[in-house]
Amino acid sequence: METRTILFPELVADGLDAVEARMRSGRLGELPAVGDAIDRLLDSGGKRIRPTLVLLSGGMLGADPERTITVAAAVELLHTATLVHDDLIDGSLLRRGFPTLNSHMEDGATVLIGDYTFARAAQLAADTESLPLIKKFAATLEIIVNGELNQLLGSTSGDWRRDYFDRVYAKTGSLFELAAESPALLVGADPDTVHAMTEFGRQLGIAFQIVDDVLDFTGNIDRVGKPVGGDLRQGLITLPTIYHLDSNPDDRIQIHALIEGTLDPEQAERIIEAIRQSGAVEETLQEASDYVDSCLDLLERFPSDRPEQLALKELTKYVLDRTQ
Amino acid sequence: METRTILFPELVADGLDAVEARMRSGRLGELPAVGDAIDRLLDSGGKRIRPTLVLLSGGMLGADPERTITVAAAVELLHTATLVHDDLIDGSLLRRGFPTLNSHMEDGATVLIGDYTFARAAQLAADTESLPLIKKFAATLEIIVNGELNQLLGSTSGDWRRDYFDRVYAKTGSLFELAAESPALLVGADPDTVHAMTEFGRQLGIAFQIVDDVLDFTGNIDRVGKPVGGDLRQGLITLPTIYHLDSNPDDRIQIHALIEGTLDPEQAERIIEAIRQSGAVEETLQEASDYVDSCLDLLERFPSDRPEQLALKELTKYVLDRTQ
Repeated sequence: METRTILFPELVADGLDAVEARMRSGRLGELPAVGDAIDRLLDSGGKRIRPTLVLLSGGMLGADPERTITVAAAVELLHTATLVHDDLIDGSLLRRGFPTLNSHMEDGATVLIGDYTFARAAQLAADTESLPLIKKFAATLEIIVNGELNQLLGSTSGDWRRDYFDRVYAKTGSLFELAAESPALLVGADPDTVHAMTEFGRQLGIAFQIVDDVLDFTGNIDRVGKPVGGDLRQGLITLPTIYHLDSNPDDRIQIHALIEGTLDPEQAERIIEAIRQSGAVEETLQEASDYVDSCLDLLERFPSDRPEQLALKELTKYVLDRTQ
Repeated sequence: METRTILFPELVADGLDAVEARMRSGRLGELPAVGDAIDRLLDSGGKRIRPTLVLLSGGMLGADPERTITVAAAVELLHTATLVHDDLIDGSLLRRGFPTLNSHMEDGATVLIGDYTFARAAQLAADTESLPLIKKFAATLEIIVNGELNQLLGSTSGDWRRDYFDRVYAKTGSLFELAAESPALLVGADPDTVHAMTEFGRQLGIAFQIVDDVLDFTGNIDRVGKPVGGDLRQGLITLPTIYHLDSNPDDRIQIHALIEGTLDPEQAERIIEAIRQSGAVEETLQEASDYVDSCLDLLERFPSDRPEQLALKELTKYVLDRTQ
């Protein structure tokens, strides 16, 4: 059997260019200040993993390329809109090393530019003319915002693992799910195929977020603006901490103090270093790896006569292996 | 010919109850705090003129009642969501005499509850399963937000009348247009009918807003939280001021000073009183009356064998005659 090597970034390069153009289509506001702000926002857009997922899924399933590009743009704009409001709420000044909107615009303008981005995303979703896709899109927006409300206003269920996976699904799993499932909805795939793509996207998103949460502990200084263990310092319990506590239950009191901000800085460094050095990182990556294996299994049901199927496998492995 | 008298509030009473229930359907967030906040928001919802417009238009055009109720709920939730963000941005503590969300919740929670309300509105719009309606809905959201951005960040075109009508369309005309046009889209009406409903809604919304702006000058103390001439004090030039300046060009300097906040309070009172007492109020109401006449003309093309046609005429006249 021939072994083909596909470099997925090359396969989607042209498609991603079209997605960038589609995201910037429309008026982008009548005001130059608004258009400029959204342009800058999109320029600092990161890896575009969600549109990549849409494009490859669409290619594998034989979806119409133009509509696939529209979906990819809608998904990324939805993602962008939620980040605009997130960064405002968290008071974050940097994202991916670039100044956030709220770092240089009034709060009111930031709220409205987020809303404007939602409106553009909704229009692109409507442009696909696929009712199932439009419904999925609106439902995903609700799940994401609901997750953010839970994070802001909710209290812990007492089960940190359950809270963590609920949050990870709302924050990342749901949007990856939308990205992978949408092309299946576009082509009117049978329910089993739709379900396979839903699960593939959901689990890939969860794996992606778990790895993100590991990188928060192990990442290097390239991850600008985020100190090591930044999540935990901000009171966010992620999977490495949960695994660490499983093996080191005596650290629970200190970790409680850390997330409540009452631990002195030296002790905080010590506990974060302990999590970095413990087996927790390995155990966490193993769990991400299990999700990735499940994703690869799900892809097996799709014929490998399209390069996109191989490319999706590559993307899936990349999610686990990435270092930033 | 028999003269029928229809009291439009009675005609839509049951429908509006169903709209209230539809707006509260879904999970309204998993958190009791969010559900309570949205409930209170909807409890303080005012006259429900937009859903009334949807219900009567739907009745006149023979749209499916259930889908009409869904549209009415979607339109009112969209309106509500924009008000949540508006009040936050303006720092308003009262609306219709009730405390705003931002008066008792954190800014971040207010942003997200607005977003959540957008998400619910989008889901209801999608539930109608009418692609033209969904597209119109998304386009209207863009127009509204764009108008708010123009108000916050834009500069005057130098033509106050043009600026005024642009703002009035974005703020009120567009949503009334959506309300009146949506049932025509639901029933798949011919382009002339759709256009008549578009124009009817747009012009009724403009008339409504013009009257609102007159009431800002002439209203009594029942309009809680708004001092007479409140718009002008906040730097907003509305039609009565524009008419006043047409006849009293010498007042321009003082009005410029007032909207820039550099006029002393006594002079401010004097100029607002001058606008109240001048012919400007009458001229402004005449312009609203012209829009209302045009709306009544547009309704003539629809057969009067449905009570909703007469009720829409009543509603149209009410928009002009209302005193609050």
